[in-house]
Amino acid sequence: MLKVGVIGYGYWGPNLVRNFNGLANAEVLMVCDPSLQAQNKVKLAYPHIDVVSDAKALISSSKIDAVAIATPVSTHFELVKNALEEGKHVFVEKPFTETVAQGEELVELAEKKKLTLVVDHTYLFTGAVKKMKQLIDEGALGKIYYFDSMRVNLGLFQHDVNVIWDLAPHDLSIMDYLLKNNPIGISANGIAHFGNDLHNIAYITVYFQDNLIAHFNVNWLSPVKVRSTLIGGEKKMLTWNDLEADEKIKIYDKGVDVKNGEGIHDILVSYRSGDMWAPRLKQTEALKEEAEYFVKCVEQNSPPFNDGHSGLRVVKLLEASSESLKSEGKIIKI
Amino acid sequence: MLKVGVIGYGYWGPNLVRNFNGLANAEVLMVCDPSLQAQNKVKLAYPHIDVVSDAKALISSSKIDAVAIATPVSTHFELVKNALEEGKHVFVEKPFTETVAQGEELVELAEKKKLTLVVDHTYLFTGAVKKMKQLIDEGALGKIYYFDSMRVNLGLFQHDVNVIWDLAPHDLSIMDYLLKNNPIGISANGIAHFGNDLHNIAYITVYFQDNLIAHFNVNWLSPVKVRSTLIGGEKKMLTWNDLEADEKIKIYDKGVDVKNGEGIHDILVSYRSGDMWAPRLKQTEALKEEAEYFVKCVEQNSPPFNDGHSGLRVVKLLEASSESLKSEGKIIKI
Amino acid sequence: MLKVGVIGYGYWGPNLVRNFNGLANAEVLMVCDPSLQAQNKVKLAYPHIDVVSDAKALISSSKIDAVAIATPVSTHFELVKNALEEGKHVFVEKPFTETVAQGEELVELAEKKKLTLVVDHTYLFTGAVKKMKQLIDEGALGKIYYFDSMRVNLGLFQHDVNVIWDLAPHDLSIMDYLLKNNPIGISANGIAHFGNDLHNIAYITVYFQDNLIAHFNVNWLSPVKVRSTLIGGEKKMLTWNDLEADEKIKIYDKGVDVKNGEGIHDILVSYRSGDMWAPRLKQTEALKEEAEYFVKCVEQNSPPFNDGHSGLRVVKLLEASSESLKSEGKIIKI
Amino acid sequence: MLKVGVIGYGYWGPNLVRNFNGLANAEVLMVCDPSLQAQNKVKLAYPHIDVVSDAKALISSSKIDAVAIATPVSTHFELVKNALEEGKHVFVEKPFTETVAQGEELVELAEKKKLTLVVDHTYLFTGAVKKMKQLIDEGALGKIYYFDSMRVNLGLFQHDVNVIWDLAPHDLSIMDYLLKNNPIGISANGIAHFGNDLHNIAYITVYFQDNLIAHFNVNWLSPVKVRSTLIGGEKKMLTWNDLEADEKIKIYDKGVDVKNGEGIHDILVSYRSGDMWAPRLKQTEALKEEAEYFVKCVEQNSPPFNDGHSGLRVVKLLEASSESLKSEGKIIKI
Repeated sequence: MLKVGVIGYGYWGPNLVRNFNGLANAEVLMVCDPSLQAQNKVKLAYPHIDVVSDAKALISSSKIDAVAIATPVSTHFELVKNALEEGKHVFVEKPFTETVAQGEELVELAEKKKLTLVVDHTYLFTGAVKKMKQLIDEGALGKIYYFDSMRVNLGLFQHDVNVIWDLAPHDLSIMDYLLKNNPIGISANGIAHFGNDLHNIAYITVYFQDNLIAHFNVNWLSPVKVRSTLIGGEKKMLTWNDLEADEKIKIYDKGVDVKNGEGIHDILVSYRSGDMWAPRLKQTEALKEEAEYFVKCVEQNSPPFNDGHSGLRVVKLLEASSESLKSEGKIIKI
Repeated sequence: MLKVGVIGYGYWGPNLVRNFNGLANAEVLMVCDPSLQAQNKVKLAYPHIDVVSDAKALISSSKIDAVAIATPVSTHFELVKNALEEGKHVFVEKPFTETVAQGEELVELAEKKKLTLVVDHTYLFTGAVKKMKQLIDEGALGKIYYFDSMRVNLGLFQHDVNVIWDLAPHDLSIMDYLLKNNPIGISANGIAHFGNDLHNIAYITVYFQDNLIAHFNVNWLSPVKVRSTLIGGEKKMLTWNDLEADEKIKIYDKGVDVKNGEGIHDILVSYRSGDMWAPRLKQTEALKEEAEYFVKCVEQNSPPFNDGHSGLRVVKLLEASSESLKSEGKIIKI
Repeated sequence: MLKVGVIGYGYWGPNLVRNFNGLANAEVLMVCDPSLQAQNKVKLAYPHIDVVSDAKALISSSKIDAVAIATPVSTHFELVKNALEEGKHVFVEKPFTETVAQGEELVELAEKKKLTLVVDHTYLFTGAVKKMKQLIDEGALGKIYYFDSMRVNLGLFQHDVNVIWDLAPHDLSIMDYLLKNNPIGISANGIAHFGNDLHNIAYITVYFQDNLIAHFNVNWLSPVKVRSTLIGGEKKMLTWNDLEADEKIKIYDKGVDVKNGEGIHDILVSYRSGDMWAPRLKQTEALKEEAEYFVKCVEQNSPPFNDGHSGLRVVKLLEASSESLKSEGKIIKI
Repeated sequence: MLKVGVIGYGYWGPNLVRNFNGLANAEVLMVCDPSLQAQNKVKLAYPHIDVVSDAKALISSSKIDAVAIATPVSTHFELVKNALEEGKHVFVEKPFTETVAQGEELVELAEKKKLTLVVDHTYLFTGAVKKMKQLIDEGALGKIYYFDSMRVNLGLFQHDVNVIWDLAPHDLSIMDYLLKNNPIGISANGIAHFGNDLHNIAYITVYFQDNLIAHFNVNWLSPVKVRSTLIGGEKKMLTWNDLEADEKIKIYDKGVDVKNGEGIHDILVSYRSGDMWAPRLKQTEALKEEAEYFVKCVEQNSPPFNDGHSGLRVVKLLEASSESLKSEGKIIKI
């Protein structure tokens, strides 16, 4: 029975408490939040859980085996570091850290301490992403040509991070998970309409060595909600529309066959167009599966795929995006 | 009665012949195409029209007042120049020219000769674009914050131009028409998957002085056809989905109200969310309206809005895009 | 403070407890369910609520002012009758009763006892239905020509009622509420595929005196979920798609203008086609509003619009449908 | 080379002329229409075709082998009868005739004269209907449970027939073709809003012997255009949305497995829900394929499946619908 303490009971924390509490081999013993209102919410819903206002009390408690952290990114480094130093396993919200340097230090510390460190990219545990992973790993799509995502809505303007740090971690982590390919450069453009240096619209392009490109369109100022991704492969292509109730993933037996013609610039392109297929997806709650997986990794001392390295790869892309954004699209090598 | 000669009877030429022929105050007297097959098609459909294989014969014919040109972009400069020198009014397909220098020379020549020179951006005459123009000019959307378009499908790979020169002229000309704002820089990213230096996917960002940004996603390798645009304004926002049979334009009474808070980086954002409204659009054929407009401008000797300057503004953006594409996103000042 | 007892804690009961408990001027003091599992669920979620297994204990409790009943329809008559006789106000699930005779007896009893009796047709409290009610009452649609609804999915086959008694009460009550018109006859067709006399697909037509018709398509055996309604009026028409996240209601400025021609059978029809408009809808939970409304009606001793008469009008249509179904569509006068 | 004469050059006639003319082994030699305007249209488009105003002149012409008839249904009987008597093969628009008696007489006459008689139900030659036919004949759907179609829009009010005779022949002929099952009864409801005895909205239910039901919703007064059909089978179910550009047909691996329980009314229902699959459809023009098929049947003297019997089966359903409509849903045995 893994004993979990949860730090932060704002938007996401209640989901962590509910899901860790719902597992057969874990229980939440303590929750920390400085807000009295949040503390009362915990007490009302879970009378048996200890509530504290100071994170150190939770982190240093000998009753706790693992700490789940759902606080603003600016606090992650300190909290994760303290938890690891106290010998606790850590489950921390995305984005992992504010800087690459912070992330590297934490990854190293977790390895030194032989503790499980997981960065919560919940989407990786959805039925849709798991199905895409399976299809790509099986080779159903063939060599991947591109990954193109759009995540826009009339969103909550964040006060501490720009739209890239708010929305892109979802799609960057999904891309990282699905493509298993090393980015070599990143170019980002965008705008901060309201004069506060926090960009509310951004467009990111990621270059890879192997004839592969990825693009991300994130926007807090859209009248409509769009969450859709195109993935083009040599054999097949797919669309992922996360707002569809059913049929989120559609696989198209479509593509081009390309032969070189006689001249240097000559290519002969022919088109294939066949059936479309929408596989049934598992409907379980992604966070529940992720919580189970974290507990299993701790119990079995097995390395999680969504570990600090994984979280760090996303932070590298975020940091490079921010740098490119300042020079309006200049490519940043990674 | 304006006497029109049409050069090029491939994909678009037949539409030009049909539409100019359908006008009360114009008629097509001559068509030029080097292909015997194309020539036979003209003869079958329009037995009374003269068919020639040499453009010079058409351009220099004294029977002709105006020349409509639907040939590959690489031939535009020569043909338009000759036509203007022969004193003919010109209606030429997009993109206007291969280079900014060519376009500038033609614009100057047309002005010197006091001839009407129109670049065919047909979309500007659709019911959808005209409605958006009206709404923006009336101020219904308020100050425009962004323009974001996506035009992708499993498209015909062109052999002479990349996807930007093929697809983006549509959206760049619409943006130019609607926003009436001067771009100051452009950043373009993309990929040529098939080793021929012709990019088949590209992402373009255009920066403007006045807190405005535009973005274009063009792709020949998508399993699904998408032709959609978001325009965000201070008062209202709209979506344009050109693939909808009805309700192509939807206007949302949505937005954010922003106040500065106390600190430098503090902004207070509140959201508005109201009704949606889909105005009825005119259903007439856009090219018919454009042909009528061209004839009217010639007859009344009035300056067209879709003149050489307009075509040249689009070529400037295309040329800058190509340059930025080479350096993977580096901003090119305009 | 209205003291409420809830009978039945299966699918819908928990929603009743949660919503009545969430009101400022009501509280749930007792829940009744014969199932031990259900009883334990109540105790876990609401430790302070009394749990009983016998409905009579709840109904006769002097602590209780009002009884909310969420049990199978076959038990409604007994439970409601007992509750009214014990002087309790009643909030009972749809369909109201198994027969018209039962419903009439209960309506009479409630009036005699001067007690509030409400039949829970939750849809009437949704933002969508309230907006349609407002539009129709304002005359925005003009005289109503027809009401046509489709409610199909791969549904839970019920063991005690057919698809009409399961799904049609929703749409019949909405029709009754919106149209305020007296049906004169009903014709129903359908099929029981699985040999148990419980029809799993049915089509119902309702005739009215005043040049108005309504139609209902209900189906438990559809591969896709559809919940959509068309309402045609003389001035405007609307669609209601309850599965849309936004824009559930769309109002079309469309219609026909009809003049009589010279001959008896001659009509001259001209068409109008204008804008479409999707009003913003309130997002509050319908059952919360209905619970509030019930409490207010009890407190103020004011007659609810969703009273026993309203529930009875729906039962009349259900009973007539069942009769028509037996003779495969023969009209049953109402 | 089959020599074809076309009677009627209104809405559909031009399509017949264009398609028969486009075939390698047929040509249109004569067109008949009483309207001068229609005659001029023919002359302009096809200068070599003879134009006459009297149908008898065409029918009795020795130059003509086959007559294609695109005139109002009230004229079909006379024209088809005359054509058959003159030894011409016949291709006639739907609905075949105004009455069952007329249809029977024509079928008999065609057989006696050994002439090919085809009723044009164009939909049967679309890629969508052919794919559904293939799937059903292969047994992919298993035993068919139901067929449910909706065909509504703001339609052209006809002056001579009601909405059933105008719209339902499409769906009735598709049902007849796909299901190959004998209807035993029909129940129809509807309304004539504009006082001319021509119903503009109708709902038709068709009963079959073998645990199968079909339903048709036709409406000239809908604000939106809907053309969709559900077909439920024991193994799989499908949807056909004819307004989709791609993916018109979607096949769902969904259904119920039913076992009888202990009691008479007890059934145990379990649900299956699997993948969805949208097969690629052929994109050729349906009428072109049908014209080719007609010519082939004439040349090879082979019996067409869309013969007079097929057209007559649809007329039987239309006639019975009209009778049921008069008694507001009373079942009419077939």
